[in-house]
This record gives sequence, structure tokens and C-alpha cells, in this order.
Amino acid sequence: MRLPDGLARESAGANAAALNERLRAQAPRVHCITNAVAQNFTANMLLAAGAVPSMTLDAKEVGGFVARSGALLVNLGTLDRARREAIHAAVDAAAAHRVPWVLDPVFIDRSPPRAAFARELLARAPAVVRLNHAEFAALTDAAPTPDAAAAYARAAKTVVALSGETDLVTDGARLAAVANGHPLMAKVTAMGCAGSALLAGALAVENDAWRAATGALALIGVAGEIAAEHARGPGSFAAGILDALYGLDGPDLAARARVT
Amino acid sequence: MRLPDGLARESAGANAAALNERLRAQAPRVHCITNAVAQNFTANMLLAAGAVPSMTLDAKEVGGFVARSGALLVNLGTLDRARREAIHAAVDAAAAHRVPWVLDPVFIDRSPPRAAFARELLARAPAVVRLNHAEFAALTDAAPTPDAAAAYARAAKTVVALSGETDLVTDGARLAAVANGHPLMAKVTAMGCAGSALLAGALAVENDAWRAATGALALIGVAGEIAAEHARGPGSFAAGILDALYGLDGPDLAARARVT
Amino acid sequence: MRLPDGLARESAGANAAALNERLRAQAPRVHCITNAVAQNFTANMLLAAGAVPSMTLDAKEVGGFVARSGALLVNLGTLDRARREAIHAAVDAAAAHRVPWVLDPVFIDRSPPRAAFARELLARAPAVVRLNHAEFAALTDAAPTPDAAAAYARAAKTVVALSGETDLVTDGARLAAVANGHPLMAKVTAMGCAGSALLAGALAVENDAWRAATGALALIGVAGEIAAEHARGPGSFAAGILDALYGLDGPDLAARARVT
Repeated sequence: MRLPDGLARESAGANAAALNERLRAQAPRVHCITNAVAQNFTANMLLAAGAVPSMTLDAKEVGGFVARSGALLVNLGTLDRARREAIHAAVDAAAAHRVPWVLDPVFIDRSPPRAAFARELLARAPAVVRLNHAEFAALTDAAPTPDAAAAYARAAKTVVALSGETDLVTDGARLAAVANGHPLMAKVTAMGCAGSALLAGALAVENDAWRAATGALALIGVAGEIAAEHARGPGSFAAGILDALYGLDGPDLAARARVT
Repeated sequence: MRLPDGLARESAGANAAALNERLRAQAPRVHCITNAVAQNFTANMLLAAGAVPSMTLDAKEVGGFVARSGALLVNLGTLDRARREAIHAAVDAAAAHRVPWVLDPVFIDRSPPRAAFARELLARAPAVVRLNHAEFAALTDAAPTPDAAAAYARAAKTVVALSGETDLVTDGARLAAVANGHPLMAKVTAMGCAGSALLAGALAVENDAWRAATGALALIGVAGEIAAEHARGPGSFAAGILDALYGLDGPDLAARARVT
Repeated sequence: MRLPDGLARESAGANAAALNERLRAQAPRVHCITNAVAQNFTANMLLAAGAVPSMTLDAKEVGGFVARSGALLVNLGTLDRARREAIHAAVDAAAAHRVPWVLDPVFIDRSPPRAAFARELLARAPAVVRLNHAEFAALTDAAPTPDAAAAYARAAKTVVALSGETDLVTDGARLAAVANGHPLMAKVTAMGCAGSALLAGALAVENDAWRAATGALALIGVAGEIAAEHARGPGSFAAGILDALYGLDGPDLAARARVT
């Protein structure tokens, strides 16, 4: 794995810190089509980071919300007819108003019709696809290696953010590895979903989608590490990561970001 | 702004304390048609205050739930076809069984069809309309001043509870300003929605809707101030406001309520 | 009430401890069709105990999720058309793939059509029915006594888990009383619903449904007692019970389980 172009190790913390500042200063609107389990925690994570969430799913209304938002999240969890219709309307509005969006194809490894829908959506030009190893394999029929992620990013003209113990972010030309985070993050439902929403928030304040994704994953990973220092388990950790994200400052990020 | 009729400064704490006691003693049922983001936190806030929430949305069932409830909340967030149908059935049942209800027209400033729906609902005689400045402007085409709120309350024969740094509550004749609260309340999703549910709970135990609204806003504002003393950010604050509401007693309220 | 067959007092803690270990070691998948209020907290409780939740409701997808799960929860809260369809598909898949399932007929005492639906579902052979006193009375037209519960369990060929200050669990031949728990559990929405999901998780790792139910109720009750020692109210308690469940170990359970 090579050092990312234009993002030397010493500048990773600065990139995350700049993102953190901009989210607070610009308070971007982020419209989220996300699963029923994740809606509340996702909204709270966006608020903690400085963004302004909206969550409506109605196909008649969603276009208007997206048109006035800085970014859009499309998460495929608890997919149903209403969400499918909302996603079509939202992606149309995003294309018409040049609103960048993130696709999080939750559980496509466990539902072939959902995987087919995710493939359709890839053709609609998401700025970033965020997914785990099993979902990447289901989407691409390839093993989730850095090279496969980069090849897929090039082919699909998107940024791939591949979640794992270390998160990989690649646009096909550049590759970053974000090593921040904590195992308790896997013990709180919707942590990944909320992280994808934060990634959408980052797109609203940073035009370079690869930098936005890299920075957002560092933010949430650092917040998780801080929260773990005080947590007694996943319940206090879930509250603590919101507290930590709310309180993050540039020096924290500079000291803790581990992006290579 | 003049001192409210029948609610001198020294009695505001007593009004809130009486409401707090009655909620615990009577444990009123409150049926909530509310948005998907807010359902869980809203139920927890009602439980913490002593009320008993129900949340079903099915148009076939909702009438029965409302008929056996002490109050109803109609919140327009994440509005969809199922919620529209449920709202019609619920408001019909509320009218038939004289169940007082609160309208919270979330985000009508961002969705013209939703604003039109809110206007229809105003004609169905909600006891209280709870909304923020942008929503008030979208509903009334007037700037959100105390005079405009009072004029609207008279015209619509309702109580207007206008949220802001200071909350205003007016029935057209009386006007109260509730100055309790904390900025972290704006950093927790569904805080306002849950507050409107608590306001509905208050209607179940206090026939004077203006006193009910004023008291409920003082309760939640005081709980927020107490929670903020212990919070490290919005995550611990969200848990803390439920703890504080659960633990509120008359002396707390008498000492802290700032209603003029 | 007689001592349960094959579960002497001294072995109740061991039964709960064994269940606790197996949930962590086997990490069973538990598919949950549950109400909108409960989805997030339910997923978090399953994760805290070591299980892997999924929550999708789409009738087209749900069969595939159930077929690959170790157990299924069917909770009737916020019942709507989508959930009814999902339940039919899920129960069909459970029958086809021999996936044990729990029925939690929430609020059937407040909705006759929902009670009728619950009776239909009883004919589909749930391994356990978890319900409170009012729901039991609505289901069976009998008072919620231990004898009536046992008679119903025999007639319906299921295990009845009757919630109350003391939980009763009977398969018609055996009867256990689980006295663990804390009053704050009634002040957190979805606590009972999440407990039923944990009970489903237990079915995935213990073939004897009566032992699974008894052990799961002891687990959650002990976690509640531990959480109450640190809680300042229902908000911190809700986080604390997840922390406690995550941290439970055999000696805790052996020392605290009160099952007779």
C-alpha cells in the first residue's frame, strides 16, 4: 500500500481537523434515506458533528428535501417499497441539483434482490460507496482486497470506502488506510450506518470525495477511541461517541488520526 | 410582553410542580403519531414523566387507541401515506371522544404539501400547535412575533406554543414566556418532538391548554438545565434529560422555573 | 408453585451462565420483526448479549433472512400492513427451515383485531409466547394465574412466559418463577420487547425452549439489577443495562439469579 497522493501522514490529522471545523461552521443539511433501526442514532451523530439531518421518506417530498441539502445518504437497510420509491426520487433530485451522495448497501450479501438494486444504483453515480467486506464481495464478485477496491472504484467512477479493522478509501488512483476506531463500535447498532451519514456530511463541505471520506472515517474513529476510554460497555459507549464527536477539536484529531 | 393573566411569576413554578405531580399520579395514556426518528425518544420521555405512551400508526387500530387515551400527539415528521391515513383516523377519534390533541407541524417550511396538510389539520381544532419560527412563518405567512402568535391563536381558536430561545405560549388573551432550557437540547434529535408529546401528556391532566403548555415547557426546560450540569455532550445529555425528568420534584421546579 | 423439574435452585444460575456463554460463543443470527419504537434498542440488546440482529420487514426479503437465522422474533407492536405481510412470510420460512420463534403479542388487550391476529399466529407453533397479564387475559379469556398459564401452554403446545413482578415460565409440565429485575425496567420503552428478542436469541443456542426462556429472563433481570445500582434514572439505566448485559459473567449470574 503506498502513501496517498497529496495526503502525507502528517497532513491526515489536518485534513480531519479541517473537515471537523467546516461541518461546524457550515452546518450542512444532510438528507438521509436510511433504515428504521438507524434513523435516530444517525440523526444524533450528524447533529453532534455540526450537520443538520432530515429523514423523510415520502416519495412526493423527498425531492424537495434533497434539492435543498448539501448531501444525500442512501442506505439500503430495512429496504421496503416506500424506501425504494424514495431512493429513486432522491437520486433523481441529487442528479438534477448536483448533490453528492453516498451509497451504503447494507446486507446485500444476505439478500440477492437487494444486491441487484445496489448495482442499479451504482450506475447513478454515487460519490462514495461505503460497504464492508461481505458486501463488497456480493457487489463485485471479487475478494475485498485493496487492489480489487481500487479497480472497482475506477470502473464505477466512484470512491470505495471499505470498512474493516482498518478502513480503506480509494478512488482508484489514491488509497488511504484509516486505522482509527475501537471494537465497541461493532457492538452498537447503526454505528456503521451513522458513519456513512457523517461521510455524506463531509461531502457537503469538501469537494474531493476521497478526502471527505478519509477525513470522516478518521473523525468517527477518533471519536470512538475517546469514547472507549470512558465507556463501561456498548450502552455508555453509544452515548459517549456522540459526546466525543461533539467535543472533538483540531489538536485531538492531529494527535490521534492514524491515516496512511 | 405583559405578565400572564392568572399566572404571576411566583406561581409559575407551582403550576409546573402541580403538572409534574398529576402526570405521575394519573399516568395518562398518550397516543403519539410521530415520526420514525422520534418514536423511541418520545416514548422514553413520556415514561420518564409518568405518562404511558402508545405509538401505533395503523389506520384500523389507531381510533381505538386514541379513544382510550387522555391525549393525542400529531407530529408531521417523516410524513407518509400510512401516517396521513392514521392522522385522519386519529383526529376523527379525538373529536368523537373529546380527546385533546397537539399538532407539531415539523418541517412545513421545507415541504409545501406538508404545510397544506397542516393547514387542513388546524381546522380540526387542535388544543395546541407547537412549532418553531420557520414553521410559524410557513403556516401563517406572518413573522413569528408575540403579537402575530396571539392573533393566530385567536383566529384559529387554539393555543400557539412558539419554540425559540424563549418559548412563547399564547391563547390569544394570555401570553407566557418560558425561558428555561439549554442549547444542548438543539443537539439531540427529536427533543422538540418529544417535548410536544409531553405537552400532549399535560393536556390529559390539565384542562386549561394554555396552562398545560406553559407548565410542560417549563418541565422539559428545567430538566434540560439539570441534565446539562452533568452532561459531557449531546449523548450523555439525552440520557440525562430523561433522568432529570424522572427525578424532578416540586422544589426543583419552584426554584428553577422561569416563566413570565 | 413447585420446584421446576430438572432445574433445582442451585442450577438456575448455571443455566443462565451457560446461556450467556453460548450466546457469545455462537453469536446466533436473530431476525426480528418488531415495532418501530423498539427496533434500535432491541438490536442493541442483542448485540450486547453477543447475538447478531437483523430487522428487515420487506415480505420479499424476510424469508431469506429468517432461513439463515438461528431464531425469529415476531412482535406485534405498531402492527401495519407491511408488518402483517412480513410476519406471514417469516413464519412460513421459520416452519420450512425449523427456525424457532417467539411471539410477543404487544397491546392485544387494546386492539381486538390484533388479538385475533395473535390467535392465528398461535396456531403456527411459536416455541414461546411472551406476554404480560393483560395480554394473557386478552388472548385466553382466563385470569393470568400459574395454572391458567400452564393449561394454556399444554393446549397450545408452546412455552408461556408471563411477565410480571415475577416472571413465570411454563411449558405445561414445568414451571419456573424468575424474580430478577428492577422497577426501572418498566420506565424504558421497548425493554420488554428487547427482552423477547433476547429470549429468541436463547432459542438459537438452547433446544429446550423452557430452559432458554427461563435463562434469558434471568439474564436480563440480573442485568437490570446491576444497571440499577449505577443509574440516576431511566436514561442512564437504558444505557446501563446494555453495559451490564455486555459485561455479565458466570459468577454474577450464579450469585444473582433468583429462579425457583
